[in-house]
Amino acid sequence: MFSTQSQSNSDAPSPSSTSVAVPSAGNVLKIKFCQWCGGPAKHEIPAGEEKIRAVCTLCGKIAYQNPIMVVGCLIEHDRKILLCKRNIEPSFGLWTLPAGYLEIGESAAEGAIRETWEEAGAEVEVISPFSQLDIPHIGQTYVIFLAKLKKPQLSPGPESSECSLFELDNIPFDFLAFSSIFITLNLYIEDVKSGKVKFHYGTINKRLGTGPSDIRAFTLDYHLQV
Amino acid sequence: MFSTQSQSNSDAPSPSSTSVAVPSAGNVLKIKFCQWCGGPAKHEIPAGEEKIRAVCTLCGKIAYQNPIMVVGCLIEHDRKILLCKRNIEPSFGLWTLPAGYLEIGESAAEGAIRETWEEAGAEVEVISPFSQLDIPHIGQTYVIFLAKLKKPQLSPGPESSECSLFELDNIPFDFLAFSSIFITLNLYIEDVKSGKVKFHYGTINKRLGTGPSDIRAFTLDYHLQV
Repeated sequence: MFSTQSQSNSDAPSPSSTSVAVPSAGNVLKIKFCQWCGGPAKHEIPAGEEKIRAVCTLCGKIAYQNPIMVVGCLIEHDRKILLCKRNIEPSFGLWTLPAGYLEIGESAAEGAIRETWEEAGAEVEVISPFSQLDIPHIGQTYVIFLAKLKKPQLSPGPESSECSLFELDNIPFDFLAFSSIFITLNLYIEDVKSGKVKFHYGTINKRLGTGPSDIRAFTLDYHLQV
Repeated sequence: MFSTQSQSNSDAPSPSSTSVAVPSAGNVLKIKFCQWCGGPAKHEIPAGEEKIRAVCTLCGKIAYQNPIMVVGCLIEHDRKILLCKRNIEPSFGLWTLPAGYLEIGESAAEGAIRETWEEAGAEVEVISPFSQLDIPHIGQTYVIFLAKLKKPQLSPGPESSECSLFELDNIPFDFLAFSSIFITLNLYIEDVKSGKVKFHYGTINKRLGTGPSDIRAFTLDYHLQV
């Protein structure tokens, strides 16, 4: 539909000055030890399975790896969209919707509300699910909700250098942080112009030979709308 | 809306006779070693974060834990719904939609198609996203798609003892495996009766003091429809 494709990574759950953030999505061969008993891992296809897993040679436990959900909010206020300028890598200095990794123990809506508070200092109410965009090659799924501000105050958190409201015709598409955000905003603007805001499901695939920072180098596949 | 609540666990990605399946959702204190370097883990709130994490005392990496997506299909064929009788624990002998953990490298729709093939031997085409139901207390999110059979053949895989098509008025609600499936089927039947099938988002919370096997002991909170 619109131009094209990909992102290499999204924001980690939180930055830490003393530790190294490692998303659980990744290469199974990098898992060398059992996190429960410390035993050395072997890499094999367990009986009854089809994929190579890291299996503990001492206790037999399997370290499964699963895609991670990134949850966030698309907030329209006075016919303007809330965006945050990233104060952390990746995509430092570029604009994004408030979003981050879903944590154990919270729902996607709760996570989206929390991330919006952390990154924009904005108290929001979730109104409706808007999109689920899977990014298989990096093991992430973006789940974005439509939300509204409870109070008009914004206050950038440590992960944002600035938060601002942009008119729909004035979104900084050349300075967005991630393909997922580029697509989400395009879908929303198309919906608003068509007079019907829908729920969107789709898969973001990167175009071969393109770099992580080229956020237009994607194809949006399997796009389904409700 | 309908009665009530919860499930303790869903089906693991695949059973294995020689290894022990361990969902990555869980108690952070059970992570005692770094899976990358084997160093002992400490449990602390890293600088800039708010939650206790398992942090490697040697290499400094953090083992984040995130909710897992369970993906599956709701297939109507000849005005009947496809259900599978579980041949594995938990909920052995009870009926469920074909569904299982999303794997790294696949989209949710691809995972739902794969699980339907593995559990019911059914080739399906995904038509539309139908529901996202978060279950925060077990760190799972159910993403269910409406799908249709490409061929009318069914052939139960090793995780199913039987696959069968049930009329909408004849769903075995007293013999379903999980709350998430109970809710999904109820929402679908309500939608069909109302003449409009929607997309549903919601959170499944367990009622206090109830057991994992009481699949009606839930509340469906934050239910949003598109």
